[in-house]
Amino acid sequence: MNVSSTPLAHARLKPLPLDAIHITDGFWKQWQRVNFEKAIPHGYRMLEKSGTLNNMRLAAEHRAGIAHDANEFRGYVFQDSDLYKWLEAASLAQHDYNKLETGDWRLDPSLVSSLQSLISNLYSAQFPDGYLNSYFTFVKPNQQWTDLEWAHELYCAGHLIEAGIARKRATGDTDLFDIVKKFADCIDETFGEGKRAGLCGHPEIELALVELYRETNDARYLKLAQYFIDQRGRNTFQGLRHIGALYMQDHVPVRDAQTVAGHAVRQLYLCAGIADLYLETGERALLDALTRQWDDMTRGKMYLTGGVGAREYGEMFGDAYELPTKEAYCETCAAIASMMWNWRMLLATNEVRYADLFERVMYNGFLSGIALDGEHFFYENPLRSDGNVKREEWFACACCPPNVMRTLALIGNFCATTNEAGVQIHQYMNVVLKTETGDWRLETGYPSDGNVRVICESDMECELSLRIPRWSTHNALRVNGTVVELETRDGHANIKRTWRAGDVVELELDMTPRFIQSHPYVDATRGCVAIERGPLVYCIEQVDQSADVNDLRVNADAELRAVWDATVCGGVMILEAEGTVFDAREWDGKLYRETRNEKKDLPRATIRAIPYYAWNNRRADKMRVWIPMK
Amino acid sequence: MNVSSTPLAHARLKPLPLDAIHITDGFWKQWQRVNFEKAIPHGYRMLEKSGTLNNMRLAAEHRAGIAHDANEFRGYVFQDSDLYKWLEAASLAQHDYNKLETGDWRLDPSLVSSLQSLISNLYSAQFPDGYLNSYFTFVKPNQQWTDLEWAHELYCAGHLIEAGIARKRATGDTDLFDIVKKFADCIDETFGEGKRAGLCGHPEIELALVELYRETNDARYLKLAQYFIDQRGRNTFQGLRHIGALYMQDHVPVRDAQTVAGHAVRQLYLCAGIADLYLETGERALLDALTRQWDDMTRGKMYLTGGVGAREYGEMFGDAYELPTKEAYCETCAAIASMMWNWRMLLATNEVRYADLFERVMYNGFLSGIALDGEHFFYENPLRSDGNVKREEWFACACCPPNVMRTLALIGNFCATTNEAGVQIHQYMNVVLKTETGDWRLETGYPSDGNVRVICESDMECELSLRIPRWSTHNALRVNGTVVELETRDGHANIKRTWRAGDVVELELDMTPRFIQSHPYVDATRGCVAIERGPLVYCIEQVDQSADVNDLRVNADAELRAVWDATVCGGVMILEAEGTVFDAREWDGKLYRETRNEKKDLPRATIRAIPYYAWNNRRADKMRVWIPMK
Repeated sequence: MNVSSTPLAHARLKPLPLDAIHITDGFWKQWQRVNFEKAIPHGYRMLEKSGTLNNMRLAAEHRAGIAHDANEFRGYVFQDSDLYKWLEAASLAQHDYNKLETGDWRLDPSLVSSLQSLISNLYSAQFPDGYLNSYFTFVKPNQQWTDLEWAHELYCAGHLIEAGIARKRATGDTDLFDIVKKFADCIDETFGEGKRAGLCGHPEIELALVELYRETNDARYLKLAQYFIDQRGRNTFQGLRHIGALYMQDHVPVRDAQTVAGHAVRQLYLCAGIADLYLETGERALLDALTRQWDDMTRGKMYLTGGVGAREYGEMFGDAYELPTKEAYCETCAAIASMMWNWRMLLATNEVRYADLFERVMYNGFLSGIALDGEHFFYENPLRSDGNVKREEWFACACCPPNVMRTLALIGNFCATTNEAGVQIHQYMNVVLKTETGDWRLETGYPSDGNVRVICESDMECELSLRIPRWSTHNALRVNGTVVELETRDGHANIKRTWRAGDVVELELDMTPRFIQSHPYVDATRGCVAIERGPLVYCIEQVDQSADVNDLRVNADAELRAVWDATVCGGVMILEAEGTVFDAREWDGKLYRETRNEKKDLPRATIRAIPYYAWNNRRADKMRVWIPMK
Repeated sequence: MNVSSTPLAHARLKPLPLDAIHITDGFWKQWQRVNFEKAIPHGYRMLEKSGTLNNMRLAAEHRAGIAHDANEFRGYVFQDSDLYKWLEAASLAQHDYNKLETGDWRLDPSLVSSLQSLISNLYSAQFPDGYLNSYFTFVKPNQQWTDLEWAHELYCAGHLIEAGIARKRATGDTDLFDIVKKFADCIDETFGEGKRAGLCGHPEIELALVELYRETNDARYLKLAQYFIDQRGRNTFQGLRHIGALYMQDHVPVRDAQTVAGHAVRQLYLCAGIADLYLETGERALLDALTRQWDDMTRGKMYLTGGVGAREYGEMFGDAYELPTKEAYCETCAAIASMMWNWRMLLATNEVRYADLFERVMYNGFLSGIALDGEHFFYENPLRSDGNVKREEWFACACCPPNVMRTLALIGNFCATTNEAGVQIHQYMNVVLKTETGDWRLETGYPSDGNVRVICESDMECELSLRIPRWSTHNALRVNGTVVELETRDGHANIKRTWRAGDVVELELDMTPRFIQSHPYVDATRGCVAIERGPLVYCIEQVDQSADVNDLRVNADAELRAVWDATVCGGVMILEAEGTVFDAREWDGKLYRETRNEKKDLPRATIRAIPYYAWNNRRADKMRVWIPMK
């Protein structure tokens, strides 16, 4: 999930380094506070409780001569990866506190020292040749690299590499990075042309190796990433029962892929890795394949929340338009993977649709993955619930919570990029930005309101590009108080001028709430509308309604009213819709009946909607995103 | 699937014995011809091709001292059951030819001799203690009864018992029945109070043992059936991953069951077995539980076709109202299991709703399982297809085809029952009936038309009850040409009188085609209607339409026209509806968009629907049962 620095040879946009962006206030500042003060410390406790930390301790001891055996290991074969993702998140948290001194949180000193001892365990657990994996140290010693399909060794290695890079960039410490490089060299000496053939059943190593290439400028890592990507699609793997190699994207070579398919996280981690490879090699066939797959995903296999992976079995993409609401799987990790991929596609193309989708996922399908208290999580993010879904403090397969933590820790860095023309603002947050040409400050009440002030803090000459989200119909732009004709080019408002410190650009986006309909080929949401306002998808929860959520019928011809409610979920903009209440008793237990023409006047009701990300924070409740029309 | 004779101590209706009903003509005669002339011989070839027959030959040889080993076995651990179901079907086919001499087909003499040699293999493969199972003879010798959860030994035994009873009843031959009794005695000596504890992961043995009790009047078999039923619900089994013991109905004692749950075939075979137990013991708690489960199934977990089992993973029931159309699993065996259960519920209660549902399944979700040519089958019976579903000649897991064969072979026997008051006609077919009080003949064009003539062929005094299907709104009744006031009692028209040979009752049912809607809680079919006529559910196939089936919008306010088309699927009543064509290009690749109020005049189209059972006989085609409304 790193924001890279150099080389990015074929990027049309360049990310800003870690130091150059800092969130100062507002919506995302609040979420980062929750992340750093609640989620990350909670994560450490859960890693301890689940045995994840202890697995690595045991591996270190085992390497030091205190033998441990298989039944002492706890969790899945890929358990180490939870730890690595948490390490990445905690390292990024340290950065914000240490370097900018603007944070008003503090990573608990005991956690900092725990983190040190954890890294020292990793150091002790590493084999002389660089190999590192707790499971294959004392559960299956001498069986390293024997089950590339299911054992996740390269997957875990990828997350370790990401963590090591993040720690080096965030804190300057190279302790973890040294471990990482040694492991990466071990992998490079093992796999590749003229060496052992292989690829991982769960993509992740590819993007990590490209990032390691960027950090080291050592082309071996890029070459190895390309090798792993080129190995895919040869049906090396059996894959999942009933699904086959498609489950792990081993059914078709990446350049020939027409669709997204199989396990959603695997597919999108792979797409992110391929996009990274394209960013360095500029190979057109890679970008063409990714564009086809992106079109396939967004035209038929994506929920309104940006969530993906319709099917529970195989945690996978369904067919086109197969988008059931209650059964929607929408793994939190798949939302994160979509953000990772969209970010890279944005860098590669400067096409606004990727930033638009990044926003949709970030505010909805991703953010729903963590509770307001920072200590409860969703693994699945359905669009309807009958009340039996609840957030958990952790999971047996706990890939999602630490993935949320590392993503939130870095969220500010997805807000802006630069290129030779100037600076591009993609996501609206309260941030300070330091670019090579000068500094900027953004102030906004987003996503509660659509007013954004972009304050220039240096004299400079460049083009400022502001993304105009596709959902925003009526927009206004002022420069130093003077209304400017808003001309969008490819979805951006662009202002090229000689800037003086103190110049203020004001953008007003259209926050009129709106009803959304789905393509008629989607069976599950036919005859329904959803509600959106700004970047937020809304939902209705039972606790806010006067009748059963499943009996409400919304009048999509009437206006929606926005009402701030400070008492709900820490303060949210409630949307009120006009509706009626259908009486299910009328059906008298029947499931099917002959159609009737009778039109009855149904009792009226006000339907109260809250942002989707905030659902299931008051209680495990009935919920719908898609509401039937009257 | 047997129709039993005595005792049925607590039945309110008694089935007629095998000899007492014969189909003479019409719709089901045609299907029986396809079954006897095409399907059953085809089944034998497929049992040979799949290695199923050879497994038993090898077992026989192995028992005779010619050793075989595991890798010679082909197919699943429950492969023998395919053979047993086919044996049951072939035996019933022999009956019809041998005893009534009215059939115009003939079971190929070579098949009759093959059948004999097959039974002789079974005889040779049987252990001295009665045990019989090819897999546990030479694949896992000495491991009999060690994996009751997954090894299906009692399940296979149940199908063997059913076959043996059918053969005895149909042909009088006791060769197979002797094998069966010996095996049943072996099971009885092995399991039960004071013996070994146990139950089967796949219910089936229960109903077979009750039937064996009926055939032998030996109460040990009834007691053993009760034992197996009482063992359920103690979480003895782990069950399926992610699903648990619920998958195999081992999560709750049968008397406490509130819902149908888990693997649909397992659930409904169990329900049939419990109903059989009730029919003999009259234990109210059993019937109460079955009634609750039936309500649960029919109020939220059943397709319009009568198909059940919404989910592919686990081949299982979904939650209430979880009824996706394209993803609908609806295994053919589950439809058959539903018929088995409904038949027994009808015998237990004389409630018309069970005969209504039997009819719905029989003409739709069951009959779709076999192609018009008798040599291709569906395992799954979805309610929508994008064209990638096709009928197969056989399956790796071939439970369905021989299950269809044995059900079709016996189909006439579900048409009528008797009790102390008289005779009840439940299903309208061309049959001759011999009851204890006298004979009847039915003549009808059903299901193409709704006219039924019931001709009395003996002088007698009794009540004739004719089921009035719930879908039939306007009905007429004449006795010897004179209109009789049609008073229905509990869904039956009852005529009590002194009958003279030659008396004719004429019933006219309402065959007006109708539009059907689903309960508003069903997401998948909201805003759609389906089409029915008489007992038939209709569907639209691409080959009959002027536009893509997914772009058609039906006008449910307009009338449906019925047109006989002799060229389609051997002659069917086509239904024509008025509709329009929606242009998907209007959405320009978008999956979601803001709602629009514009009402456009769409191009008109005539929508042509065919009976659902007949779909996928011309080509693998796009198909919908539920059609969106304009």
